[in-house]
Amino acid sequence: MNKVVIFGVGLIGGSFARSLKKAGAVGSVVGMGRSAASLQRAQELGIIDVIGSDMGEALDGADLVLLAAPVAQTEAILAAIAPHLQPGTVVTDAGSTKSDVVASARRALGGKLAQFVPGHPIAGRETNGPEAAIDDLYVGKKVVLTALDENAEADVERVAAAWRACDAIIHRLTPQEHDKVFAAVSHLPHLLAYALVDDIANKPHADLLFQYAASGFRDFTRIAGSSPEMWRDISLANQSALLTELDSYLAQLTGLRARLAAGDGAGLESVYNNAQRARHQWITAIEAAEAPPSQDKAD
Amino acid sequence: MNKVVIFGVGLIGGSFARSLKKAGAVGSVVGMGRSAASLQRAQELGIIDVIGSDMGEALDGADLVLLAAPVAQTEAILAAIAPHLQPGTVVTDAGSTKSDVVASARRALGGKLAQFVPGHPIAGRETNGPEAAIDDLYVGKKVVLTALDENAEADVERVAAAWRACDAIIHRLTPQEHDKVFAAVSHLPHLLAYALVDDIANKPHADLLFQYAASGFRDFTRIAGSSPEMWRDISLANQSALLTELDSYLAQLTGLRARLAAGDGAGLESVYNNAQRARHQWITAIEAAEAPPSQDKAD
Repeated sequence: MNKVVIFGVGLIGGSFARSLKKAGAVGSVVGMGRSAASLQRAQELGIIDVIGSDMGEALDGADLVLLAAPVAQTEAILAAIAPHLQPGTVVTDAGSTKSDVVASARRALGGKLAQFVPGHPIAGRETNGPEAAIDDLYVGKKVVLTALDENAEADVERVAAAWRACDAIIHRLTPQEHDKVFAAVSHLPHLLAYALVDDIANKPHADLLFQYAASGFRDFTRIAGSSPEMWRDISLANQSALLTELDSYLAQLTGLRARLAAGDGAGLESVYNNAQRARHQWITAIEAAEAPPSQDKAD
Repeated sequence: MNKVVIFGVGLIGGSFARSLKKAGAVGSVVGMGRSAASLQRAQELGIIDVIGSDMGEALDGADLVLLAAPVAQTEAILAAIAPHLQPGTVVTDAGSTKSDVVASARRALGGKLAQFVPGHPIAGRETNGPEAAIDDLYVGKKVVLTALDENAEADVERVAAAWRACDAIIHRLTPQEHDKVFAAVSHLPHLLAYALVDDIANKPHADLLFQYAASGFRDFTRIAGSSPEMWRDISLANQSALLTELDSYLAQLTGLRARLAAGDGAGLESVYNNAQRARHQWITAIEAAEAPPSQDKAD
């Protein structure tokens, strides 16, 4: 690719730029964003070649545009891009939810919707900003593309090829499948962890309780250390799928409560056993094939 | 101490023996247990000096007895000990729940109840058996003693001094306080983690879901890798306090569900924010003062 434009040059966008450069897969990277300081720093660090100021100029002749700014800005950025989007340019994003992004794109891009290929790289760390960007963030990590019926296969392939150049592994789901899956394995656990810590923190004897919390509690609640604003946005963006998963979990807990209240040891053990076995199979089958553990952004 | 008797020479009991020996705090360690192979191995490894066979002989002249066998055996062991328990011997345990242990002791020891000082070392690893025993498992770790009104202070102090010789830090709670605290910060999180993995594993598209589970999910569910039998026993042993915590959490989740359904972003964010802040304070205030992270047994 000759020219790639990146909105948001922090961990996700900056690491994308660094990885493409390392692979020799891009000529010039233009950085766009609301923070002049971040753009300046990204240029000093060699993450981007040019700080874009004029939208038309930035997008002129671009092969690929990546939206890696906070998801709340997605629709506004797409709306700003739309008038300047040339036929040869493909736009993708890195948001943690997809149905809402597709709805935003439909509104903002109108007749140019076909040029937008939604994506979600399943990678991240707990650090942020241009300084956090590294050239191997995506190595061996999954990138889920949720192509639209309107997309030309060649455009989907352009996005896939860019991520493959970062050594990521491409998966494809529909936006609805994506949101159901991540509601279950990521968004619900975040909500549950926040809920537990808040519940404990609000008790009158919270200080006593926290004093005896140990490493099991620390790991269980690690994701409650994530950005509240980001997870508020993700929760609302994936409201419907998250409600479905939450209701399923509430039914599960209600069933477990009944077994506990009845002193049904065999009933409790069968749930614990099934969970332990399933988790062991997952760890064995999936994780063994993956890169060494790293922290997730908003997996 | 001249003579210490340990029932169960695995990680917990074996590490207690090793730590006392390292500190020069014990003359001779007698190992007792149901597995002849484990006792044999513990002796080969230098964890115990003598394999006890006759209860009367094993307890004769003992200063301290530690029960570190699975908690389901506690009452039977105490009942077997009772007839042979001499006035100069103090008995303690390492169980993860305390009210039920006190009830067992009351039944099994009768008039000798005052010689039993219940305890709970908050330490462990995911390994087990005599091979797993190490001489620094308890360094900087908390040991909660839940002394009884019947206990003589000198007997409580004998148990405390033994754990201090292992470089553990002594805390004191009532058995009821202990069980409430650990229901909130340990037993409930275990139940929640088991419940989530089981819920996902039972869905028709479980394979698809597990495929996209990442490091956030791994940490959240790590405790669901624990022994189902042990956690069945703990759940039942602490049934009442666990039900109270579970009901509090169910109310919390129901409230969060209402906020999510109403699209109340500010309401969600305030819970997420409070949780993130409380967790950060906890990590900062408590963990900074502790030893480097290690895995917990049944914290």
